[in-house]
Amino acid sequence: MKKILTVLAAALLFAGAASAQEIANFNRGQQVVSPEVTADGITFRLVADYATVVTLTGNWMDYSAAPIPMTKGPGGVWEVTIPLLEPEIYTYNFVVDGVAVNDPVNFKVQRDGTRFLNMVFVPGKRSEVYNEAKHRGTLTTMWYDSALLGINRRMIVYTPYGYDDPKNKKVKYPVLYLLHGGGGDEEAWSSMGRAAEIMDNLIERGEAVPMIVVMPNGNPNQQAAPTLGIETSDVNFRDPAYANAYVNSLVNEIIPFTESHFRVIAKPSSRAIAGLSMGGGHTLSASQLYPSVFDYICPLSISSQDTPEIRAQLRAIKNDGYKL
Amino acid sequence: MKKILTVLAAALLFAGAASAQEIANFNRGQQVVSPEVTADGITFRLVADYATVVTLTGNWMDYSAAPIPMTKGPGGVWEVTIPLLEPEIYTYNFVVDGVAVNDPVNFKVQRDGTRFLNMVFVPGKRSEVYNEAKHRGTLTTMWYDSALLGINRRMIVYTPYGYDDPKNKKVKYPVLYLLHGGGGDEEAWSSMGRAAEIMDNLIERGEAVPMIVVMPNGNPNQQAAPTLGIETSDVNFRDPAYANAYVNSLVNEIIPFTESHFRVIAKPSSRAIAGLSMGGGHTLSASQLYPSVFDYICPLSISSQDTPEIRAQLRAIKNDGYKL
Repeated sequence: MKKILTVLAAALLFAGAASAQEIANFNRGQQVVSPEVTADGITFRLVADYATVVTLTGNWMDYSAAPIPMTKGPGGVWEVTIPLLEPEIYTYNFVVDGVAVNDPVNFKVQRDGTRFLNMVFVPGKRSEVYNEAKHRGTLTTMWYDSALLGINRRMIVYTPYGYDDPKNKKVKYPVLYLLHGGGGDEEAWSSMGRAAEIMDNLIERGEAVPMIVVMPNGNPNQQAAPTLGIETSDVNFRDPAYANAYVNSLVNEIIPFTESHFRVIAKPSSRAIAGLSMGGGHTLSASQLYPSVFDYICPLSISSQDTPEIRAQLRAIKNDGYKL
Repeated sequence: MKKILTVLAAALLFAGAASAQEIANFNRGQQVVSPEVTADGITFRLVADYATVVTLTGNWMDYSAAPIPMTKGPGGVWEVTIPLLEPEIYTYNFVVDGVAVNDPVNFKVQRDGTRFLNMVFVPGKRSEVYNEAKHRGTLTTMWYDSALLGINRRMIVYTPYGYDDPKNKKVKYPVLYLLHGGGGDEEAWSSMGRAAEIMDNLIERGEAVPMIVVMPNGNPNQQAAPTLGIETSDVNFRDPAYANAYVNSLVNEIIPFTESHFRVIAKPSSRAIAGLSMGGGHTLSASQLYPSVFDYICPLSISSQDTPEIRAQLRAIKNDGYKL
């Protein structure tokens, strides 16, 4: 006996709009290739018949550098070729008559904070690990309650290839807590930072042991990435009374949650913490405040001054003993 | 004893670029509010000092409708106000001197196939279920091997609030297989279709029972969404020899994979299938080819002609017995 679902019908009213939209996918209007990576360089193209000035900017340029002018050719196609860059993923956008524009024929886009930028991939040894590996882990986007921060919060957890396999259901794994930088959120490492692809490749090559990677949101007012549109809490976490609130939550809430929800080796020798920029600061604070929790620490690209605070943090870690 | 991770260092070279980029988040350049939804209408604004013609298009308009002209005001701010729309999520973009442009101050963006479109949310009873519910389920992005299609493939699985709670570890759930439309992929329902938010809300209200929702990729050549840049397979699935290859994989591969990896009530009375447009066609085919697998079917927005094939599909379902 078949029954037609009615409970879904109300929920899926949106389907009508989606259905109309999907037709539009097939009318892109732009008949150019962009970007085109060859041994001689990278060519960017944009159809902009009525534009007056079109330029290109990218993250391989200095911040003070002027945008690169593009030249209008037949069919209203603006074009420029730059010398080939070192293997890496770069981001870029066009500027059309003063307005930043994504490349409409390149749907490889990354979100950097609140900006969407096109990506161009230059292949080579250094960028190999950004490609999909043969064996791929799982990304789990889940919510946990933080009593310390007073909100429900989202985090993303990478589990390595094989974790989900019923035949491994007794295997336990070490955990890396991987923290994002300022302007980022829980999605930064897995989308912009390609953490899953990198881990898949390192594990496949035998350059990393299979591990779980926990990527929380390091902005204590946020429940989740701002793209979800959830209001932030109005606690002033710059108030010294809330000093280290996020780091305290990480150690006292995120770690226990992780260790109760995943098959984890719950020992300092199987716990690592790493963070970029602001997350590097969180890494140092966590190591100083909780010296017995993590046996592996990795602060990355911290911009800090030589302050008594930083000296105290580094001294605490040094005093605890370390090995490079 | 602390050890500084070195294995990660090579993988995280990208961190340098990300660190520089994050500074750029704080320099948006655009000091306007857009879109602004009030009781009187929706106002869209764009700073475009040097542009000659700026217009607005959105999915509330007819496809044949001309773009809405915007007017330049002080400070190079182009603006237009449209009458308030019915509660719903709409998509829009600007056109600056002939080039489609996303709204740089609105980071609520959805991907529709290969296009990125800004969203504007009009609150109201009909759109309530798109908001975050109080209790939120988990989204798992995972890979499975398809021997029938010859590739490793990605799918996204929603598990309801409570599924991950260790105290529920013996609870089993019914499953809805939810299929996307043409131009879409495994991310379409959870990003553009807000399936997780809708399920969270319906379950919280008691309008749906807690269930697992499996969202596979319905394009048999694709391993995953094209944004991942993985090459498609070159099998010609339009060849009649491969008729129903995806539907066969769904029933013979995706369902067993789901039932071995999640706590599922593995019975027809706890299996539902629903699909939009192309996915509605997959829903009908699956019901016709495997009449004893799903007790609940829900094809949505199918555009089809009155052909002998469709009649046969509907007849098969009718003959099997149904209840509206």
